[in-house]
Amino acid sequence: MSDSTPSTPRTEADPFVPAELYSQVQQFYARQMGLLDDGRPDDWAETFTEDAVFREASRLNEPLRGRVAIRDSSRARKQRLDDDKIDFRHWLGMIDVRPQTDGSLHTRSYALAMRVPRGGALDIFASVVCHDHLVRVDGTWKVADRDLHHDGSGRD
Amino acid sequence: MSDSTPSTPRTEADPFVPAELYSQVQQFYARQMGLLDDGRPDDWAETFTEDAVFREASRLNEPLRGRVAIRDSSRARKQRLDDDKIDFRHWLGMIDVRPQTDGSLHTRSYALAMRVPRGGALDIFASVVCHDHLVRVDGTWKVADRDLHHDGSGRD
Amino acid sequence: MSDSTPSTPRTEADPFVPAELYSQVQQFYARQMGLLDDGRPDDWAETFTEDAVFREASRLNEPLRGRVAIRDSSRARKQRLDDDKIDFRHWLGMIDVRPQTDGSLHTRSYALAMRVPRGGALDIFASVVCHDHLVRVDGTWKVADRDLHHDGSGRD
Repeated sequence: MSDSTPSTPRTEADPFVPAELYSQVQQFYARQMGLLDDGRPDDWAETFTEDAVFREASRLNEPLRGRVAIRDSSRARKQRLDDDKIDFRHWLGMIDVRPQTDGSLHTRSYALAMRVPRGGALDIFASVVCHDHLVRVDGTWKVADRDLHHDGSGRD
Repeated sequence: MSDSTPSTPRTEADPFVPAELYSQVQQFYARQMGLLDDGRPDDWAETFTEDAVFREASRLNEPLRGRVAIRDSSRARKQRLDDDKIDFRHWLGMIDVRPQTDGSLHTRSYALAMRVPRGGALDIFASVVCHDHLVRVDGTWKVADRDLHHDGSGRD
Repeated sequence: MSDSTPSTPRTEADPFVPAELYSQVQQFYARQMGLLDDGRPDDWAETFTEDAVFREASRLNEPLRGRVAIRDSSRARKQRLDDDKIDFRHWLGMIDVRPQTDGSLHTRSYALAMRVPRGGALDIFASVVCHDHLVRVDGTWKVADRDLHHDGSGRD
């Protein structure tokens, strides 16, 4: 990961990114999370690079390494949600974008995870801080590295 | 509705829309939902076209047809909230915009509905997927068709 | 405050602001609230003008007057959260921006306040309407006046 790790210190004095870039990132996340929530694990996996790493250290999960692992995990998840008849939504917001010298982006955002069982009540159950490393591939953005930190876990 | 129905399949490869358009849609929704939450049913109704259709099939509600019906429904709702001393907020986010060949827009977004009774606790009680058909009228956007799907309803 | 108070009536017919401005405001809030949530009270205080006023009349709190008072309040708050091992998040969205004739901005936004104790459950406990007066200082925005209204308080 070298100089493109999500942990590269941010400088508060960094200028804001241009509107075109900011709105691209907003649209990327709206579509990406929409694919997950719509139960399309294969299309979801395509929004990651081939060698992407998906980290959830705050949950003590081992990282998923590579698009195939991300896809397989997402397929299994979809099966569970379908079996349990649960609607799932991921909200992502409060996005901060830090361009890197190589043209890639570091983003920090907040995410809320929520679910509604058939006929049941809305449960917003997790607040997560998401650090992504986005790279441009074929005119769009893909996630090369995602690092999720669950609030309340006490781990960084 | 013909080719401009909200159910027109999206293509994931669709390019992102320009920042000017995206930020217009964001601003439209912030103001539109603000009017509803501020208890201004007549101004809220003006954000819909004269012949707008407002669908909530997932709640088994009949569609509201036309601005007058939307206004009357909103007036009645405001009266109930005032009587019960309830503050209501609608958050809308995760917006995806798909321009149509006729210059109109299909949008998909997530919405959260929440309320706070006087002196009571916040209750975020509904997660909704909103499909809108937006048309440009007199330099701004108006909703020609809104299709709400409540999570957990099990209906499309 | 004169003509730049947050209570200056908005006109619904106001045009939308350009994307560059809108995305700057979005980025400002993502970073500002991130500083508060990251437990950086001194950096947080720097996002307010020297003579900023921070109002929470709906909670019957006296306004904080000046950056030093805002910083001291935030330092005390951080100490409490650290002692209690609580992760805190502020979401801000649904932003409406109204440029003033002097180049400053009035913004209205919705905010959600949430916390997660170590090993505990997510608690989204407050919905707040935020009226800010933003002024441009040294190429970025700072809050000159913040007026928070807590839903359910029954006070304006």
